[in-house]
Amino acid sequence: MILSALLTSVGINLGLCFLFFTLYSILRKQPGNAEVYAPRLVAEGKSQQTNDFNLERLLPSAGWVTRAWKLSEAELLSASGLDGVVFMRIFIFSARVFAFAVVVGVFILLPINYMGKQLSLDIFDLPNKSLESFTISNVDDGSNRLWIHFSAVYIFTAVVCYLLYFEYDYISSKRVSYFYSSKPHPHQFTILVRSIPVSSGRSYSETVESFFTEYYPTTYLSHWVVRRASKLQGLIKNADKLRRLVRLKSANPNQERSRRAGFMGLFGHRVDLLDHYEKKLEDIEENVRAEQSSTLGKEVGAAFVSFRTRFAAAAAIHMQQGVNPTQWVSEPAPDPEDVYWPFFSASFLKRWISNLVVIVACVLITVLFLIPVLIVQGLTHLEQLETWFPFLKGLLRIAFVSQVITGYLPSLVLQLFLYLVPSIMIMLSSIQGYIALSQIEKSACIKVLWFTIWNIFFANVLSGTALYRAEIFLEPKKIPAVLAVAVPGQATFFIAYVVTSGWTSTSSELFRLTTLIFNFIKRNICRKFDDEFEVPSVPYHSEIPRILLFGLLGITYFFLAPLILPFLLVYYCLGYLIYRNQLLNVYAPKYETGGKLWPIVHDSMIFSLILMHVIAIGIFGLKKLPLASSLIVPLPILTLVFNSYCRRRFLPMFKSYSVESLLKKDREEQNDPTMASFHDRLATAYQDPALMRARYSGNSESINAPLLRTSEADT
Amino acid sequence: MILSALLTSVGINLGLCFLFFTLYSILRKQPGNAEVYAPRLVAEGKSQQTNDFNLERLLPSAGWVTRAWKLSEAELLSASGLDGVVFMRIFIFSARVFAFAVVVGVFILLPINYMGKQLSLDIFDLPNKSLESFTISNVDDGSNRLWIHFSAVYIFTAVVCYLLYFEYDYISSKRVSYFYSSKPHPHQFTILVRSIPVSSGRSYSETVESFFTEYYPTTYLSHWVVRRASKLQGLIKNADKLRRLVRLKSANPNQERSRRAGFMGLFGHRVDLLDHYEKKLEDIEENVRAEQSSTLGKEVGAAFVSFRTRFAAAAAIHMQQGVNPTQWVSEPAPDPEDVYWPFFSASFLKRWISNLVVIVACVLITVLFLIPVLIVQGLTHLEQLETWFPFLKGLLRIAFVSQVITGYLPSLVLQLFLYLVPSIMIMLSSIQGYIALSQIEKSACIKVLWFTIWNIFFANVLSGTALYRAEIFLEPKKIPAVLAVAVPGQATFFIAYVVTSGWTSTSSELFRLTTLIFNFIKRNICRKFDDEFEVPSVPYHSEIPRILLFGLLGITYFFLAPLILPFLLVYYCLGYLIYRNQLLNVYAPKYETGGKLWPIVHDSMIFSLILMHVIAIGIFGLKKLPLASSLIVPLPILTLVFNSYCRRRFLPMFKSYSVESLLKKDREEQNDPTMASFHDRLATAYQDPALMRARYSGNSESINAPLLRTSEADT
Repeated sequence: MILSALLTSVGINLGLCFLFFTLYSILRKQPGNAEVYAPRLVAEGKSQQTNDFNLERLLPSAGWVTRAWKLSEAELLSASGLDGVVFMRIFIFSARVFAFAVVVGVFILLPINYMGKQLSLDIFDLPNKSLESFTISNVDDGSNRLWIHFSAVYIFTAVVCYLLYFEYDYISSKRVSYFYSSKPHPHQFTILVRSIPVSSGRSYSETVESFFTEYYPTTYLSHWVVRRASKLQGLIKNADKLRRLVRLKSANPNQERSRRAGFMGLFGHRVDLLDHYEKKLEDIEENVRAEQSSTLGKEVGAAFVSFRTRFAAAAAIHMQQGVNPTQWVSEPAPDPEDVYWPFFSASFLKRWISNLVVIVACVLITVLFLIPVLIVQGLTHLEQLETWFPFLKGLLRIAFVSQVITGYLPSLVLQLFLYLVPSIMIMLSSIQGYIALSQIEKSACIKVLWFTIWNIFFANVLSGTALYRAEIFLEPKKIPAVLAVAVPGQATFFIAYVVTSGWTSTSSELFRLTTLIFNFIKRNICRKFDDEFEVPSVPYHSEIPRILLFGLLGITYFFLAPLILPFLLVYYCLGYLIYRNQLLNVYAPKYETGGKLWPIVHDSMIFSLILMHVIAIGIFGLKKLPLASSLIVPLPILTLVFNSYCRRRFLPMFKSYSVESLLKKDREEQNDPTMASFHDRLATAYQDPALMRARYSGNSESINAPLLRTSEADT
Repeated sequence: MILSALLTSVGINLGLCFLFFTLYSILRKQPGNAEVYAPRLVAEGKSQQTNDFNLERLLPSAGWVTRAWKLSEAELLSASGLDGVVFMRIFIFSARVFAFAVVVGVFILLPINYMGKQLSLDIFDLPNKSLESFTISNVDDGSNRLWIHFSAVYIFTAVVCYLLYFEYDYISSKRVSYFYSSKPHPHQFTILVRSIPVSSGRSYSETVESFFTEYYPTTYLSHWVVRRASKLQGLIKNADKLRRLVRLKSANPNQERSRRAGFMGLFGHRVDLLDHYEKKLEDIEENVRAEQSSTLGKEVGAAFVSFRTRFAAAAAIHMQQGVNPTQWVSEPAPDPEDVYWPFFSASFLKRWISNLVVIVACVLITVLFLIPVLIVQGLTHLEQLETWFPFLKGLLRIAFVSQVITGYLPSLVLQLFLYLVPSIMIMLSSIQGYIALSQIEKSACIKVLWFTIWNIFFANVLSGTALYRAEIFLEPKKIPAVLAVAVPGQATFFIAYVVTSGWTSTSSELFRLTTLIFNFIKRNICRKFDDEFEVPSVPYHSEIPRILLFGLLGITYFFLAPLILPFLLVYYCLGYLIYRNQLLNVYAPKYETGGKLWPIVHDSMIFSLILMHVIAIGIFGLKKLPLASSLIVPLPILTLVFNSYCRRRFLPMFKSYSVESLLKKDREEQNDPTMASFHDRLATAYQDPALMRARYSGNSESINAPLLRTSEADT
């Protein structure tokens, strides 16, 4: 890729960004779009938009930028919880890292690379200059200038490690103070016990009661045995769908039924439709009641056990309860709204097998995904495209078209494929046996991260040169040399990738195109104006891996192709502003993990550093500076030592709270009169919502009352 | 190697074994040898030997065999603790495994191998038959008979896994019942807290006191801050040595002094010697007192904290105490007599660094040790020996000599080298930062095991063919093929190794040659008859790896060269008898780990199975049966799955006791009146013996009283 192609790409994307910004600042002021651009404010009743028309509504403005900028961390904490704060810290941390990298990379390394003569390119024709001349490939072999690159690698690693330590420290102290300032939550007092042994002649509930009253006589409070409700949940879901359909039809009898009936009219039965649905609904509700009465007696070998104090609950989690370690397996309970119910019925063996199956499936998906990536990869080589599609030859010769294709198209197609991955990974994680939505999201985040690193970084790097992939990782000795050849070769692709995928995806996040379109269709075509709309939560499992991939690209290309760094810095600054705005207006936290996602960020950064060191070992070997190559070797070891210290110093704080913290909180509340009522509420906090709703609907839900005529007559 | 050479070797070793047995049965009856062959009984005052001479004393007898055989497991448990029982279970388990292996290997696989024609050897000349014809190498390539080997691998793996599961289950249940039947031990009620934070103006003792009274007000009992005593220990050791010397001389003034003085008389000063030692001793004792008074004030940031109940202590171990996870680091306290004091003064960082250094040193020793092994390896090839030492040519041509050299010498030399390794590994483990002697021994056991596997198994296997070693493990894909070529080639060497090293070392264990010689010198040359002699404890760290190596050899050669199996079975039966006798008469347990060594045995067996599978994959590929080669692949995966289940099912029981067990014990003792005095004793149970003895000697030790004239006058 030549410089002008890059500039074209940058131009297009800058234009797109400004277009998105302008459109956003206009569209967000339209009252109909409040649900798209400020669903959170609407849900909280804070949306102050009127339907009055004025000119201001049509003018773009930058007020949101100021508001997002001025937001303090304390405000963010109260609005989005610690997870939101930690999410924003990723941007702050990355911006700091790359601000330093830009200073070193652009002002020191870039000129050195450019002055090199290795690629013997014409130095004066700047626009047609290959971007290769800005990379380390252009530095002469064996040149002493490479020692500057060598020092830069050492200094950069030190700075990143310092920032990582600082950030880990900051977030773990935030986590402790967040715990200190938190109100009593059911999950702090509760543990989940699984694999309760079967006693003959006793129900699980009695077994749990007798076990915990015997071994925790002073601190045991209550328990709630989980009931098998997966079938019931399915039925209720169906009933809900039908109920909504019936309600829609009976609410707008003329308009709705005539349109729908016209659509279905091809098969006759114009008026019967409503009756048909109602009948179906009655059947299902009868099933629900039958299932409900049988289900309530069908206990699963798992229970939520609540204690009087946080300390007692924590002590119970950490210790092996029964003599047999596969029985009475205890773990921290998630928040009631965070519980993922469908997988509770699974036995230890079933969960273990599904865990294995998911791991295999995950590896397979990660590997098989390469096929579309390889096709996309072909698009970056114009010559190949011309041989494949000879009829396009004329078109491809036009400078602009060829620049768009090389600079823009490949990463766009790749990105479209990648949109599917997070939901697949969430699905895989959810059948892996996790009991909390937050755990599923965290696990999916890790899966997506490895998927992204493998399929974007490694697949592009290695398929660009040859199909080494499988073989390379079976011959660890050759990895540095192979990467040293392959990685710099893909520098231009990744610069384009940052600009297209990074910039555009972030601004489209602001613009929320799909939601906007859905909302438009809903309002103008379906004419639905119901107040029930869901406030979305940040999809951490898809956002964090993307942000971390850019971090990986920046760190690995820091000394290879410093040209990538300014674009990354812009990306992180953009992301910082946009996501702060989104956290304020759009996303509401569904549950709170207390910043448990940070260790993923930390590990990913350490991995990126090690990868950079491995490439550096290869590069200095390739550039005929074997001394520098050997002198890099201590660096990954030191980084791993640093990481192992961090794991010891900070990681335990992300797993559980200390005795000191727990007892401090417990004692604060010792004389609190409201604790008694909280303890009472604990007893029923962990009811499966399916069972609750089943009973609720059985006792006639107000809105559905007219539809339950028959069933009520039955009871 | 040919069959007759093997038989010569077997003959020599059988002869040696019987010689050892006969000598043992005579020597053990000599009253002077009681300290060698029954130190345990002597120490317990159970030795009933008289000095009367009778003929029976000179006749060999087999009474000890019957006694060792008849010993029940309950008796063994009471005599040698659970560790002794677990140690004997290794023999029982291995004997079971190889009894099955002998049936399959010798009666099914061996005839098939022998009937093969691949090596086209003369089938009738049995004595000069190469042992190769009994191995799988002799089976024709692509022969369907290899499917029998294939099935044998599957069946054998299943049987070993079943036995492993059974044994793990048995030992973990033994462990629980051992805990239930144990008397209250200080270590059950105590935790060790390290990295106590420094508070300004407060001593560690005050900090610990205030921390635990605040957070464990009802269960905290007492604490004992560790004091820096490493210098003191050195001084006391010197003083002890001198004291003994002085006592010896003053006790036998004529005999002792004259002899020694005659020896030293070359330099004059005939009578001054005693005075000289006494003066030196006085100096040291003064130092000890000075050090003692200064040391008692110098606390280290570590303390033993005792609780009222086992449950409270266990809860405190499992939870993070302070907000900062690197402070108040808690771990289970070892038994007071199990504590390894010298390394207490080390800070977190110092321990961490020494840990890293030890790992590096361990790897280096393991790798550098190959040099002598390679030299030894050369001895197995007679031709090489002849070219190196041409003057030996005549000698080497003698059939008997050549058979001794090929069959016996190499493994003897190797074994001599290996004698040094356990003590080196113990030394390495002891500077690694462990706080208990049992932990040091366990860690050394693992180190010696890997050392043995690498330096005996892999070094012999791989150097026998070429210097692949380093390269092979960097190219994992090639491992099966390389091992498949190399491993069967060394079958004869390992058969000889089992016979020489295995049989002889076990019978020499019975004979205790070095101890016998030392005892003889002590009694007849030094004429020392002091009652102070130490009852030895089983050197698990050197014995277990050796036993496990034979297991590894048996499992990997099970289907390659079944000829090894009967020799192994004999080895395990011998070992079973001999070690039971030794546990009864010689070794007394110094401390009790509660069978924590079993997981090492389990892991080693799993490793052996996986190694066998990898070799099988290679062998079937080599033998042109690719289908069998691929069908073996699921086997290591299944084995690993089995292992991961075992780790989950049993391993937690070897790490800590369950709430159920702890509370059961606590409640039994709740109303026990002796518990009050036990609690009182807990407060001082964890004094450093160096400090105790220092105070003791300061207050004049009765036996040394005459030597302390001057120092007493000072005080």
